[in-house]
Amino acid sequence: MATGTLFLVPAPLDFGCTPEMPLNEVMPQSTLATAARLTHWVGENAKSTRAYLKRISALLPLAQPLQQMSIVELPREVHKRGDHLGEFDARPLLAPALAGHDMGLVSEAGMPAIADPGASVVRAAHQLGVTVVPLVGPISLMLALAASGLNGQNFAFVGYLPQDSAQRSARLRSLSQLVQQSGQTQMFIETPYRNAALFQALLSELPGQTRLAVCSGLTLTHQQIRCQTVQAWKSQPVPPDKNTPCVFLIGR
Amino acid sequence: MATGTLFLVPAPLDFGCTPEMPLNEVMPQSTLATAARLTHWVGENAKSTRAYLKRISALLPLAQPLQQMSIVELPREVHKRGDHLGEFDARPLLAPALAGHDMGLVSEAGMPAIADPGASVVRAAHQLGVTVVPLVGPISLMLALAASGLNGQNFAFVGYLPQDSAQRSARLRSLSQLVQQSGQTQMFIETPYRNAALFQALLSELPGQTRLAVCSGLTLTHQQIRCQTVQAWKSQPVPPDKNTPCVFLIGR
Repeated sequence: MATGTLFLVPAPLDFGCTPEMPLNEVMPQSTLATAARLTHWVGENAKSTRAYLKRISALLPLAQPLQQMSIVELPREVHKRGDHLGEFDARPLLAPALAGHDMGLVSEAGMPAIADPGASVVRAAHQLGVTVVPLVGPISLMLALAASGLNGQNFAFVGYLPQDSAQRSARLRSLSQLVQQSGQTQMFIETPYRNAALFQALLSELPGQTRLAVCSGLTLTHQQIRCQTVQAWKSQPVPPDKNTPCVFLIGR
Repeated sequence: MATGTLFLVPAPLDFGCTPEMPLNEVMPQSTLATAARLTHWVGENAKSTRAYLKRISALLPLAQPLQQMSIVELPREVHKRGDHLGEFDARPLLAPALAGHDMGLVSEAGMPAIADPGASVVRAAHQLGVTVVPLVGPISLMLALAASGLNGQNFAFVGYLPQDSAQRSARLRSLSQLVQQSGQTQMFIETPYRNAALFQALLSELPGQTRLAVCSGLTLTHQQIRCQTVQAWKSQPVPPDKNTPCVFLIGR
């Protein structure tokens, strides 16, 4: 029997919180059609994978009833530490693909394996010779980057900054140096309830002429995208909402 | 009159070369519907902007005939040098937005302002207080990153490498050091006809244990995605096609 394919299935950026938003607003039809025909899934979280499939089923018939879907969760301790480190062997999760089933990999929001777990599963697919096909959908980091007007020819995403405020300040100063020296846009994210604290740290630590973009609620009705110098932000500070995922970008 | 919005409109990744590929395979309906109602455009290339609108018109009626569309090209000398440097003042291009028209920004393929011109126009929009709305569509760098299985929690895109072979080798060694030290995935692109030369340089310059992903023809029927160690590539080298855009990634 031919080996199945591993499809990387993007999820909407609302974390299932605005089910009234039609999925086809942010997903190509072919992404939804592919997802609807899959019966074997690996997900960051089984509950939200089921919720996502339920939203898809409102638009397209699923290949089989939700209760019969095979949905395997990535072990929590693995994805909390980051599953891109190569320590976790995800090959057993791909047994259905080796048995001929096409499979889906999905995370909580956006593209699996980008600022989200999933890399271990993709790595395992390459090791096993399982074809990997990424599907088109919303990716908050890139929506933010394009909409910031900052350098999109040279950019980096560095994940989360340290929580300790002294360490965070030191990290911000080193990222700011990188921006000044290389012109490379630096992007990072924060747990939403710490958005405001990070925003304040940015205003204190960065030189006034640095451009700072704050992008929150991407693709959602309350989307906010603003890019201006730190100096301009200081004269009119608008800290981001504590409940909304936010992407921060600094550049020249 | 209310100021118009600047929509960032992604384009398919086939550079208009496979018009038989239905656009709705890779674009959400709302991206196409928004594009179809815009009458004022800024494009990397006016001819391909028109060709793209013509493809959209096969699916949805355009707000006005193609010949009557306002399509302004970004000056070629500006986008050849990179329009993200802040030297080019794109504010005059946004006059229609200030006069109340919604506008579209589009590049040759993928998302404008990411590995493509457009940043100057987005920067100008922020300066003028024009709202910027990025639309969902295919972004080759992120499709490649997710599908590589390399670290997606910390990654950088560094654009094109130097053409001179000694300089290119030096650059590759320094990117490889960065990968070893920080675990940050490094991504870059090349003009397709130089893909094979870059591929050879990667095999010569990188340590055998470095993981190298080569992703070409993303979203197209001849898509190829492969990630393995440099050592494994060396034992079975498959240089990428010289006519197909390709994303190269190296990681731990």
